[in-house]
Amino acid sequence: MRIIADNLRITQKALEIAVAKEDAAPLQTMAKQCEMAGAEGIDINSGPLYHHPESRMTFMVEAVQDATHLPLILDTSNPKALKAGLIACKIPSTLNGLSLEPAKLAHILPLAAEYRTDLVCYLLYPNGHIPPDSMERLNVALLIYQKCLAAGIEPDRIIIDPVLVPLSWQDGLFQAREVLNVIKILPELLGFPVRTIAGLSNLTAGAKDPAKKQLAEKAYLPMLAAAGLSMILMNVLNAETIRVARTCRLFSRESIFTWEMVG
Amino acid sequence: MRIIADNLRITQKALEIAVAKEDAAPLQTMAKQCEMAGAEGIDINSGPLYHHPESRMTFMVEAVQDATHLPLILDTSNPKALKAGLIACKIPSTLNGLSLEPAKLAHILPLAAEYRTDLVCYLLYPNGHIPPDSMERLNVALLIYQKCLAAGIEPDRIIIDPVLVPLSWQDGLFQAREVLNVIKILPELLGFPVRTIAGLSNLTAGAKDPAKKQLAEKAYLPMLAAAGLSMILMNVLNAETIRVARTCRLFSRESIFTWEMVG
Repeated sequence: MRIIADNLRITQKALEIAVAKEDAAPLQTMAKQCEMAGAEGIDINSGPLYHHPESRMTFMVEAVQDATHLPLILDTSNPKALKAGLIACKIPSTLNGLSLEPAKLAHILPLAAEYRTDLVCYLLYPNGHIPPDSMERLNVALLIYQKCLAAGIEPDRIIIDPVLVPLSWQDGLFQAREVLNVIKILPELLGFPVRTIAGLSNLTAGAKDPAKKQLAEKAYLPMLAAAGLSMILMNVLNAETIRVARTCRLFSRESIFTWEMVG
Repeated sequence: MRIIADNLRITQKALEIAVAKEDAAPLQTMAKQCEMAGAEGIDINSGPLYHHPESRMTFMVEAVQDATHLPLILDTSNPKALKAGLIACKIPSTLNGLSLEPAKLAHILPLAAEYRTDLVCYLLYPNGHIPPDSMERLNVALLIYQKCLAAGIEPDRIIIDPVLVPLSWQDGLFQAREVLNVIKILPELLGFPVRTIAGLSNLTAGAKDPAKKQLAEKAYLPMLAAAGLSMILMNVLNAETIRVARTCRLFSRESIFTWEMVG
């Protein structure tokens, strides 16, 4: 399980201002902190970038790249920004992401094919709604997989995001269990060891009690790892959650690590 | 995943003295504390009971039963003590346990068959050694399963313990990963949803740094749950680990529980 930082989001006021002013320092400080904390990749969540999509994404990618050599995930629904980000990236990056929504199929899928990038595919209905259970998610996975193949995306470039929902939703716990099932079943369904990603922060979005939020993340994260999750998108600056992530990573793959490295 | 307390062990000096003096109070206090903490079963680990096996196990079972109605697991290698415990139990109890060791096949297997109890089966070689990997554990599982069937034990009475080893062992991390694999594969291998149990304390036995020990347990426990473990044998009086156990239990089964119950 690779740990991807979700900390570089433009919804953070300080980063929004930095991007507007083209001030690289706050982004670079954040990127370095994420790397120090153990991130193995950084998600650049630029928001939709209605204004100056190309120049702003280019600025963000260049700023972060000057601070770290970690691989980047370009996270926006704006295809112009994605393309600009791809061009600015010095090492292969990942597009985040595709879904069955018509605009995304029309604009993001061809981009991934043309640039031969890795591509995060969300298990959402064409109207952007979240499927109610694992069976429906698996149906969507088959559909989006076929769309990818038809567009010339190699299977090993596909990364499926089964879409976590907040636990505070009425069926939040049920959905959390269904997501674990989806992660377990997907490789068998698609017939190859397809990679998967999940955004841990979604699980506790809107939760008010910090202790409860932390507890839910700490318990669910290793379950995702044990289910076979390939990449966890998370707040790597949460000291306790990242320690759990690093520890359960030791338990979830062949490695040269030893017990001495727990902690 | 059911939570079983491993706290009632005679290796705890206070309990050893209480048993020797037939003083029920310390056992009862401990049993009540375990129930309050969320235990759904109590393992009575009496040790081998070289002296007075029958009377001492009877005393322990009666003492604990007077304090709680939780189901009991009788945990000793002494068949005389097991038999006495079975007779003293008012509700069905579980024998812990069988292995391919000849003495256990000769004495514990017939006892489980005669009293139609649930039976924990350890995946150990006939000489008591621990198999080196998941493949060997699965071979042992097939052998012990056949022994159980031949003795008239119904499959749904079998509980497999894949045997966790300390992380401090040279191959400790590897073995921890192999145990997760065994838990995942066993139901498919045996062709029915066989129950499994694991002793979490084994994982960190001998570890000196309490923070590191806690971290390893908190990360590994939800992975066991996600792998499909049926019962976790653990120190339920460790406040932080039990919170994680209760939380990941919410994520690992159909239930009426909701997010509000996290914590």
